[in-house]
Amino acid sequence: MNHDQTPLFDALHKHTTHLPVSFHVPGHKNGQILPEKARHYFQRMLPIDVTELTGLDDLHAPEDVIQEAESLLAAAYGVKESFFLVNGSTVGNLTMILASFNEEDMVFVQKNCHKSVLNALKLAKLQPVFIEPDYNHDWKVATGLSISSVEAAYQAYPEVKGIILTYPNYYGFTYDLKSIIEFCHAMDMVVLVDEAHGAHFIAGTPFPLSAVQLGADMVTQSAHKTLPAMTMASYLHLNSNRIDRQRVIFLLQALQSSSPSYPLMASLDLARSFIATYDKKDKDNLIMQRKAFLESLKHIDCIKVLTHTDNGDILKIVIQSTKGQSGFALQKKLEKAGVFPELADSHNVLLIFPLLKSDTEFDLNAISQRIKRAFLFPEEQTLPSNRSYPLPMNRKIYSCLSLNYREQAKKGKTFISLNQSIGRVSAEIIIPYPPGIPLVMEGEEITLGQIKELKQLIKLGARFHGGEYLHEQKIKVFE
Amino acid sequence: MNHDQTPLFDALHKHTTHLPVSFHVPGHKNGQILPEKARHYFQRMLPIDVTELTGLDDLHAPEDVIQEAESLLAAAYGVKESFFLVNGSTVGNLTMILASFNEEDMVFVQKNCHKSVLNALKLAKLQPVFIEPDYNHDWKVATGLSISSVEAAYQAYPEVKGIILTYPNYYGFTYDLKSIIEFCHAMDMVVLVDEAHGAHFIAGTPFPLSAVQLGADMVTQSAHKTLPAMTMASYLHLNSNRIDRQRVIFLLQALQSSSPSYPLMASLDLARSFIATYDKKDKDNLIMQRKAFLESLKHIDCIKVLTHTDNGDILKIVIQSTKGQSGFALQKKLEKAGVFPELADSHNVLLIFPLLKSDTEFDLNAISQRIKRAFLFPEEQTLPSNRSYPLPMNRKIYSCLSLNYREQAKKGKTFISLNQSIGRVSAEIIIPYPPGIPLVMEGEEITLGQIKELKQLIKLGARFHGGEYLHEQKIKVFE
Repeated sequence: MNHDQTPLFDALHKHTTHLPVSFHVPGHKNGQILPEKARHYFQRMLPIDVTELTGLDDLHAPEDVIQEAESLLAAAYGVKESFFLVNGSTVGNLTMILASFNEEDMVFVQKNCHKSVLNALKLAKLQPVFIEPDYNHDWKVATGLSISSVEAAYQAYPEVKGIILTYPNYYGFTYDLKSIIEFCHAMDMVVLVDEAHGAHFIAGTPFPLSAVQLGADMVTQSAHKTLPAMTMASYLHLNSNRIDRQRVIFLLQALQSSSPSYPLMASLDLARSFIATYDKKDKDNLIMQRKAFLESLKHIDCIKVLTHTDNGDILKIVIQSTKGQSGFALQKKLEKAGVFPELADSHNVLLIFPLLKSDTEFDLNAISQRIKRAFLFPEEQTLPSNRSYPLPMNRKIYSCLSLNYREQAKKGKTFISLNQSIGRVSAEIIIPYPPGIPLVMEGEEITLGQIKELKQLIKLGARFHGGEYLHEQKIKVFE
Repeated sequence: MNHDQTPLFDALHKHTTHLPVSFHVPGHKNGQILPEKARHYFQRMLPIDVTELTGLDDLHAPEDVIQEAESLLAAAYGVKESFFLVNGSTVGNLTMILASFNEEDMVFVQKNCHKSVLNALKLAKLQPVFIEPDYNHDWKVATGLSISSVEAAYQAYPEVKGIILTYPNYYGFTYDLKSIIEFCHAMDMVVLVDEAHGAHFIAGTPFPLSAVQLGADMVTQSAHKTLPAMTMASYLHLNSNRIDRQRVIFLLQALQSSSPSYPLMASLDLARSFIATYDKKDKDNLIMQRKAFLESLKHIDCIKVLTHTDNGDILKIVIQSTKGQSGFALQKKLEKAGVFPELADSHNVLLIFPLLKSDTEFDLNAISQRIKRAFLFPEEQTLPSNRSYPLPMNRKIYSCLSLNYREQAKKGKTFISLNQSIGRVSAEIIIPYPPGIPLVMEGEEITLGQIKELKQLIKLGARFHGGEYLHEQKIKVFE
């Protein structure tokens, strides 16, 4: 295998070099029809924004350059079969879950999962048992599952058919996935892993092991999150006979555009080549540059910086205020200085460090200077008094829905005030976004702790998916 | 409304002008991390391939520039509400169908629909009644439905909940949609229209009326097919109270990436501006240039050219051989001359003429010359003797599945030879692609006519979705 090869990208490049005439879709005709103001950004890209022309294969029935590119991908990740995704890890999660289970099947679900997992549970009409993740008190975020939680849940629900895990979490935390996979396989469960944030783990130390190496049955990865792929471009890996391949194929073509974007697919081909050739020199350079960058942040006295070692993702770096400011406030300062972090939460600003190659030009000194300037004038604003928020306490190890998806579909819904909602069954998912981890589940009985957390987030200016009337302190419940 | 405005594109442009530092996804960091060979195509585009940063809104909870852009879209198309789609009209069809009907609902379906409609029927577990389209003997393609067919089907199945139409067809044919919509609404049916090929109809004469103007409840349009949007970028229009808006919203965020592509969304914003400002001068120029182009093709003696008047889409032009050659053979010749048509079928090569503006530079003379060269040396190859193929004869006006989707899910499947399959129930959809119109439905009893048509297509070198063992003359049936 020569991972310098990029068969799909090369075929597109070759196609453009003959100055082809387009009497086909898309309507921009290789970029010739385009509003003037769009030219700078779009014109060079559009000649490869083509369709299933002769020699360019077909994502949904690959037999030529796309098949080659997908084979190179499977080889790089050491799996049986890999698929290019043009609809994000969202479609990866939908496909994994809809392909692996049947209606009413019981499944374990790591509670701090992405909303696409929850949407898939609902569309597949499964019976989820949510398992509570561990919690990191420094970062103040939910991390991963412990093997003991999974074992305890299994004791209670031995009829479970599989488990849906998130590894690493948004903040780069990993956990003992190997033991969980071994236990689950021994109990005849299917193991699906949303590894959206770990497409680069395959590069090896200092990165943690990837779920594909640890034996998961299916794994989805957002190539666009850490590799140089275009947004919405992801990978799906099938690495087991426990899953019906034909169902996977059906779902991928049913849930993804029948006109998949060639620039996105080409970027997946290029990103595979990028990571499969990421070598020791690249890693040494990355470690050195990251160290220097972190060193330069040390001298800013109103912030502290949290990082991972090789048990977590070294690309994830968190900044917290030492003056009691929220992550949202820190984010504003950084953005004012032109530095855009990945997300803010109540406590943290999360940065994703670039996956530098040894020859990447990236002026980290200039960036450090900007960050320093951002924090030159620390405001005295402090967080509200219950600073320990959102430390989850006394949560159950696992929890079921109070109303299953079929029952939910038959019930009416109404909005009531947050204060009156405790003990009622929520009729909406509320997800602070980013990071897209649900706080209140649809079909779940609402607790006092959740309402406290929700009020705090509203106060701190978090954004939400769901929660249409949260600004009026109202939540939708089943009647 | 000022349709020169492009609020989303402008916000992205503004974001890039401040040379922002990216510590967020995607991993290419505004294009700074990118394999050398990809630079020419990707580097200028990638600074706008960003994520939900401050000021850039959120497709799944729009309240700023994306909301503005979608409002301009709704205004341009004269509908209640419009949505940007980043997963093609595929997700438009899935959403329309899953949002409008419940499991086991009976629906009428125009038989020459796109496979995404069939996938949606299966995922939604509906009871489809397929209505046979009319047939055009010159173009030799299925066109649209007649009001009499719809009335006849309604007489037989008055319990029907709605109808799913395709307008125009792939070849630009329209039909009396207005009468069908009026009849269906009078019978309390929901009307959904896959107008993938008609996003430009809103420009008015000489184009046919759009389904949004004719009163359909929901309409999906591939902005990328005829407008200058990027591939996979589409529109969904909601124009009725017959459909639960909340279900639409849920499905759009469940079935589309939670990391939607900003270049795709920006291209939707630009494409709306393009078509909403397409004026008389543009249309006069288009008509004139098209006329001159068609004129120049007249003198090629081995081909004939078929076109539409204002009852069909004037952008769709078909070339047929006068020497008995198949469309596939003509396509090969054109491609050899660097002219790439939209598709070939047994008889036709389909060209999609560019939607020229009055100031578009597009050298149609040079293209005509290329086409002339392509046909300089007509081969004497002729079609097999049953030249009347694929004229459908004696087809029933409407037909149901022999096995519904739930029954199908419980049955085993096996491959048998095409010759033995007549009278068995097909366990796969077989779709010659393009144009993506199914020949054999999953769950349908296989007929002699279908097998004849299938064998002919294999012989002529058509490509298929489904039909894994067609090359061995085998088809999958239920046991």
